[in-house]
Amino acid sequence: MGELMQIFHMNKGEGEASYAKNCTVQRQIISLGKTVMEKAVYDAVKNSLPKSMGIADLGCSSGPNTLMAISEIIDDVRDTCHEIGLPLPELRVALNDLPGNDFNYVFMSLADFNHNLNNNKGIPSDRCFISAMPGSFYGRLFPINSLHFVHSSSSLHWLSQVPVGLDHNSGKHLNKGKIYISKTSPECVVKAYLRQFEKDMFVFLRSRAAEVVPGGTMVLSFMGRASPLASAEVGTHQWELLAHALMAMAKEEVVEEEKIDSFNTPYYAASAEEVRNVIEEEGSFVMNYIEGLEIGWDGGSVESHHDFEVSSKAQIVTQMIRAVVEPIMESHFGSQVMDDLFRRYTQLLQHYFSKTIAKHVNLVISLTRKF
Amino acid sequence: MGELMQIFHMNKGEGEASYAKNCTVQRQIISLGKTVMEKAVYDAVKNSLPKSMGIADLGCSSGPNTLMAISEIIDDVRDTCHEIGLPLPELRVALNDLPGNDFNYVFMSLADFNHNLNNNKGIPSDRCFISAMPGSFYGRLFPINSLHFVHSSSSLHWLSQVPVGLDHNSGKHLNKGKIYISKTSPECVVKAYLRQFEKDMFVFLRSRAAEVVPGGTMVLSFMGRASPLASAEVGTHQWELLAHALMAMAKEEVVEEEKIDSFNTPYYAASAEEVRNVIEEEGSFVMNYIEGLEIGWDGGSVESHHDFEVSSKAQIVTQMIRAVVEPIMESHFGSQVMDDLFRRYTQLLQHYFSKTIAKHVNLVISLTRKF
Repeated sequence: MGELMQIFHMNKGEGEASYAKNCTVQRQIISLGKTVMEKAVYDAVKNSLPKSMGIADLGCSSGPNTLMAISEIIDDVRDTCHEIGLPLPELRVALNDLPGNDFNYVFMSLADFNHNLNNNKGIPSDRCFISAMPGSFYGRLFPINSLHFVHSSSSLHWLSQVPVGLDHNSGKHLNKGKIYISKTSPECVVKAYLRQFEKDMFVFLRSRAAEVVPGGTMVLSFMGRASPLASAEVGTHQWELLAHALMAMAKEEVVEEEKIDSFNTPYYAASAEEVRNVIEEEGSFVMNYIEGLEIGWDGGSVESHHDFEVSSKAQIVTQMIRAVVEPIMESHFGSQVMDDLFRRYTQLLQHYFSKTIAKHVNLVISLTRKF
Repeated sequence: MGELMQIFHMNKGEGEASYAKNCTVQRQIISLGKTVMEKAVYDAVKNSLPKSMGIADLGCSSGPNTLMAISEIIDDVRDTCHEIGLPLPELRVALNDLPGNDFNYVFMSLADFNHNLNNNKGIPSDRCFISAMPGSFYGRLFPINSLHFVHSSSSLHWLSQVPVGLDHNSGKHLNKGKIYISKTSPECVVKAYLRQFEKDMFVFLRSRAAEVVPGGTMVLSFMGRASPLASAEVGTHQWELLAHALMAMAKEEVVEEEKIDSFNTPYYAASAEEVRNVIEEEGSFVMNYIEGLEIGWDGGSVESHHDFEVSSKAQIVTQMIRAVVEPIMESHFGSQVMDDLFRRYTQLLQHYFSKTIAKHVNLVISLTRKF
């Protein structure tokens, strides 16, 4: 995991391929979870009436969305306090992501954010303290009983590591020609992915259980799937097409086929049932709500993109996916093949979009720490 | 101040001109303050017996020293607990610097640091949480009563802004041909500097007074001076020589003289007396200790460098000073003249070192928050 922590981050900076410029889907997802979040923040405040309120955004990344979620949470806290007649608590906001995240970028926008808090929301600078906590959320991050509300968006579908037995050091190539669960993947690959997800989610919940006060709440939102069968799912197509692009490059000897056989993505799209099972097994949280929301690959709702120009849509989606997966692909396949890979990927997407309305399933889950 | 917060940071990264490669003086200073720190940490723990201990390093910068100070503080806490028979508290460590600081660099070394904590110091990862708090320490940074020990090294000689009336927008050029207090500076310049220092230090202390628990302690170490007279001081020579270099460039029309006349450094080397006065006026802290320590410009103790090659010493000192002041000089004079400026500066230093044993005075102050 140490190694993955060094490599895995969104593309840095503000260039065309950066995460900061390509996060429309993530923004849509935050917005869809808005009402769920309002209720969860209300419960967090109501349950513990904090004088000093700990708020954490886990997997905050570095882009305009980083502070958007925090901004909405602060609004929700203010509205709740207004409604139940409480003074606004001191807000301790922690932004978390892996140490390789571009925190410098986030910090440069804090001055504007604080200015807006002071001048437009009437929250003085000595009432809101925004810090960064670098580290993996698959482990302890915060002091005991220090958090009242936890938010995590578009992050928990990333595993802490390539599933045990499927990493490139294992020597075995169990998932030939593929980089994620596919129709051709043997059952042991599907099982290894599920086991890793269950293990990671358990550690995540157990770590948060120590950090979140009784009655504190969490809203977790991440990629999932609708079908019980992992290999039958539309959600896998982004990796399926990327594997196609890689295999085409292998045929032309641009990439070694062995490189593809030995690579598996540290990602898992869980079903609602699988998530529910881990939450029940871990036992520290009550699940208030779980929903799968379908969204288009480019962040639009599913229906609204029939007449969208297929080729420009393919370009946009390539940029969005590249911003997220390039660092991890680059470290395995080498930076020199990245442009070629994503050019081929765009072509495959164009073909795919001309036949299909591509959609993801995004799970939104609301939890309360048991008393 | 907003503007200065954007510009002011140490040179980033790990290149030859970076702060990370040129911080020998700062390391020496930390080491000289070691015994003072041991006592102050002991008092902090003894006075409040915390179960969860808040520790902050203000102006942490980004280099090897960033975590060196924290490492020593953690050792001191552990030794103290061992001595008085307390279990080690949960450690909440906050690294503070301006938002422009290269926090990404610091975060990349956290994995090694935590590994060392776990394996060599026996402190498990769920007992020590290291976060970053970007912002100016001339204002509130942390929640009320959340800190037990505060450390700041090589930072408080930087003012929050160019003294009022001396900034380049003021239209008046009161300090012609100079960039800091000099023998030729009129009395109003000296006064403007002192006033700004007093104002900043007052705000610093008042902000910390809200954040530090009663009985909590602080060790502050920063550049000062031995003489009561600000303009008579050796400590001003680094700016004096930099002004000489700039004026030489103005004569050759490489730099506009008006640019020099309108620039004043947001730096002040206070006397112990001046510091004592502000601490007494603000009134929240008891001063336990204040000392001025002389150190060579290259970080060696004053005596030990007689036979040091003058030219290589000049090179080293240039690199060290450039790492700190280049961002601020660059934003006023332009990046294209920086190499020229620091080449001339090296020559002036060589000449200066051949005649003088150049030394700074570093103030070390220990304070306790009143009960």
